[in-house]
Amino acid sequence: MNIAIVGIGLIGGSIAIRLKEKGPFSKIIGVDKSEVNQKKAIQLGLVDEVATLENAVKDAKVIILTAPVDAILKLAPKVLDLVTDQVVIDMGSTKENILKLIENHPNRGRYVAAHPMAGTEYSGPEAALPNLFKDKMMVYVEASRSDEDAFELADSITEILEMKTSFMNANEHDVHTAYVSHISHLTSFALALTVLGKEKSQGRIFELAGSGFESTVRLAKSSPDMWTPIFKQNRTNVLEVLDEHIKQLQSLYDAIDKEDYEGLHKLIKKSNKIKRIIK
Amino acid sequence: MNIAIVGIGLIGGSIAIRLKEKGPFSKIIGVDKSEVNQKKAIQLGLVDEVATLENAVKDAKVIILTAPVDAILKLAPKVLDLVTDQVVIDMGSTKENILKLIENHPNRGRYVAAHPMAGTEYSGPEAALPNLFKDKMMVYVEASRSDEDAFELADSITEILEMKTSFMNANEHDVHTAYVSHISHLTSFALALTVLGKEKSQGRIFELAGSGFESTVRLAKSSPDMWTPIFKQNRTNVLEVLDEHIKQLQSLYDAIDKEDYEGLHKLIKKSNKIKRIIK
Repeated sequence: MNIAIVGIGLIGGSIAIRLKEKGPFSKIIGVDKSEVNQKKAIQLGLVDEVATLENAVKDAKVIILTAPVDAILKLAPKVLDLVTDQVVIDMGSTKENILKLIENHPNRGRYVAAHPMAGTEYSGPEAALPNLFKDKMMVYVEASRSDEDAFELADSITEILEMKTSFMNANEHDVHTAYVSHISHLTSFALALTVLGKEKSQGRIFELAGSGFESTVRLAKSSPDMWTPIFKQNRTNVLEVLDEHIKQLQSLYDAIDKEDYEGLHKLIKKSNKIKRIIK
Repeated sequence: MNIAIVGIGLIGGSIAIRLKEKGPFSKIIGVDKSEVNQKKAIQLGLVDEVATLENAVKDAKVIILTAPVDAILKLAPKVLDLVTDQVVIDMGSTKENILKLIENHPNRGRYVAAHPMAGTEYSGPEAALPNLFKDKMMVYVEASRSDEDAFELADSITEILEMKTSFMNANEHDVHTAYVSHISHLTSFALALTVLGKEKSQGRIFELAGSGFESTVRLAKSSPDMWTPIFKQNRTNVLEVLDEHIKQLQSLYDAIDKEDYEGLHKLIKKSNKIKRIIK
């Protein structure tokens, strides 16, 4: 049995490395609209061959979609039109729109929506890592809508990736990822823009940048091609959390502006409760 | 020759560990207003003895101030009143107010203003680390105002800590730290407050928190006792950068809100220039 990976970047490539080493698949077929990525994927040994989407679907038992989420919106219905008993695993970062789009597709049962909560700020096939997924969370979304055999096959891949699992509905998934993933990227992008802007007038400002700065700003290296579609697809939730985040920043601003240092101390102390969550 | 460390927390404790191992000092004397910290510093072997400020200054050739910046504002003039040929090294995170306060003190020459750009989100003597400062930047502020022998003695400690060095005036220092350190903490505090607030209504939201989230929010574990005074002392610069940061977040918000995804893509791509700075 063969597997096709549609979109051979950080996520697709990292899955490929692991499946090549541990998976039950005879052949890993890469699909990517970028010829550069196709070549790199072959050169790096991530995939055994590259193919068109149509040929890959014909030739594979499992089709994993790891393209940007706007591309998945176009790919998913096409792939579902082509499958018979294959399994399609959507690994995109947003789920509500895509699952709504395909909810009445006759082959909906062959579709497994799964979001691996793993990544780095790098992108492309050369960013792929062998242990990217180990001990991370695979979130299954509306798993009950998938055929049992399709889900089981998808879950056997999750096991090979050595991931933990969680189950959610689409809305819950999109709200939660807005809060614990999408907003972190937006704050990093904004922080980078803020400091880069100041550098123009002030120069040498980054001489003092330490590990704290690096930690809060590293996500600003993330790909606009991947992230613009995520914010588009999760627009409502992202706007909600961004609005709340701006309000929280404004309340810190107001406390400093009004010299209410007791209030500021309280806000910081309250934020310290995050210790409960991250060790 | 003895050294006194006033404020035995993360910074003071980490200096103590290193000086005990490599320094030329016969005795490390700890000064801390907290009896708990005094006991811990002795138990952990960070200092050889604890003393009152007055006795420590009498007994030491070098006095390092590593208390929160509001405490340094009170300590510095007191210590300068007491010194004769001793050297006082101020390791606080803000410099303009303190240097203005002591600029005409008759012992100003004995004072070396130095800010080690190193830290973690933890605090207290138990957070001290042996290699906290290695390869980090020590920023000397208004170094030309220090007596040459005082500066040389301070710089020999910087060498023992294996740090790089940089020289700035007080305003430059406070502006730069606002941009590459203070703002990172404010965004983390605000992000933690945003997500902790949502958890109340949504529950299990942190189940999906991954390394990206952890990276942007870890500074929110930082001590309010240390950070409230920093924001107070660097109020004008912090308000300026916070205002700019909120504007950048607002422009990301507006692009998503107006569905201007081309504009959003451009902003993200622009922020990617941070790659130039952090590898």
